[in-house]
Amino acid sequence: MPSIEVCYSPALFPYITVQKPYIVVVVDILRATTSFCAAFQHGVKEIIPVATLEEAREYKRKGYLVAGERDGSTLPFADIGNSPASFMKGDFEGKTVVFTTTNGTVAMNLGVEAQEVVAGAFANLSTLASWLEMKGKEGNNLLILCAGWYNQFSLEDSVFAGCLAQRLIHTGVFSTGDDATNAAIDLWNTASPDLIDYIKKASHLNRLTALKVTNDLEYCFTLDTVQIIPILRDGRLAKKSNDQ
Amino acid sequence: MPSIEVCYSPALFPYITVQKPYIVVVVDILRATTSFCAAFQHGVKEIIPVATLEEAREYKRKGYLVAGERDGSTLPFADIGNSPASFMKGDFEGKTVVFTTTNGTVAMNLGVEAQEVVAGAFANLSTLASWLEMKGKEGNNLLILCAGWYNQFSLEDSVFAGCLAQRLIHTGVFSTGDDATNAAIDLWNTASPDLIDYIKKASHLNRLTALKVTNDLEYCFTLDTVQIIPILRDGRLAKKSNDQ
Repeated sequence: MPSIEVCYSPALFPYITVQKPYIVVVVDILRATTSFCAAFQHGVKEIIPVATLEEAREYKRKGYLVAGERDGSTLPFADIGNSPASFMKGDFEGKTVVFTTTNGTVAMNLGVEAQEVVAGAFANLSTLASWLEMKGKEGNNLLILCAGWYNQFSLEDSVFAGCLAQRLIHTGVFSTGDDATNAAIDLWNTASPDLIDYIKKASHLNRLTALKVTNDLEYCFTLDTVQIIPILRDGRLAKKSNDQ
Repeated sequence: MPSIEVCYSPALFPYITVQKPYIVVVVDILRATTSFCAAFQHGVKEIIPVATLEEAREYKRKGYLVAGERDGSTLPFADIGNSPASFMKGDFEGKTVVFTTTNGTVAMNLGVEAQEVVAGAFANLSTLASWLEMKGKEGNNLLILCAGWYNQFSLEDSVFAGCLAQRLIHTGVFSTGDDATNAAIDLWNTASPDLIDYIKKASHLNRLTALKVTNDLEYCFTLDTVQIIPILRDGRLAKKSNDQ
């Protein structure tokens, strides 16, 4: 039976034991992977995730649309911020967006040996779970890779990992013998009766509160607002098509 | 107020944000730090933790008593195994023991900038918590460093971290804004009604079961069997004295 493994930080990736073939789901709930879902929902055709400001600035010089923040404020040279809400106003139809996300980019680049690398969030949970169930039936294992917070454990990413893992184990297609996955499932079950309230104890969230970007919370912790799976190809994300 | 941070793996140590001065509690419930408690309880004077078989063999050549296992079996050149039970028969009064523990040694060596590095286990929980409360009142922060399993997240170490953190926060001396600490506390509260049953889902434990070393479980998950704190000095562990 295909197995699930949860990795709490890109820094723990070298020690994972997931067997090939496997799918990687990158998770950065606050906010990269949630924003990817919102972006594709609102017409974006392609996202280029970049880790550094230098890369983003270089793309800007070449004429790309750039979504970029540091410490909660839109970068001076960027067109829009990193929040899901940034994509809900304006016309993004068919556009390519360069998206600055340190933690998310690091995580996505680790999936080079995976069959597929996709982005997971509460926003696309059910669509993602259905597709993973199918991929599991085809014999793929699953690695849920939490982007974390500068390589530290992140509560919101881990809780989502547990939510997704539990759902997939309940299908009977996947199993797990992984401590991190079992712990994530327990955290999800502790958190799920009042997800936003639970997440409010996260230090990352406290930081976001201080930076007055708490407007994103409701969207970031609402399940199934989109039916889209962002999928990585050659360093760029697009909407997964039906034959992928 | 002094803060608590939990680190789930030595590989995450470079990313911790704990402020100086701080105390490090190394945790390797199955079984290094539990065995250290048992060893000092049964007369051992000093423990030299080593990471590799080569180091252990070299000490053996020099005439040291060696406690060593690999994959659940006592090493051919070792005198005794790594389990707490190894120290409960025979005469260890005043002896120095070389103890092979890959995960534990790696973790202990990371504490070079700490005020003190001590070993924590369910076996010495209350004694350790009382001492840490005093150290917190003196202004020390706390890092609970899980030895993990070859740098992977370990359920039993994390649950212990949550148990210790919750106890210290309840004293009013420590606080936390750390995601990993909050998650560990939730795991402890999920696990505590039936600790051994909960831990039975740990993959590390499944491995131990296969190797027929489950006899250690009851001891490793019983609280407060000793009133000793193993403390590190120059790479060697001894019983903490009253003035430390």
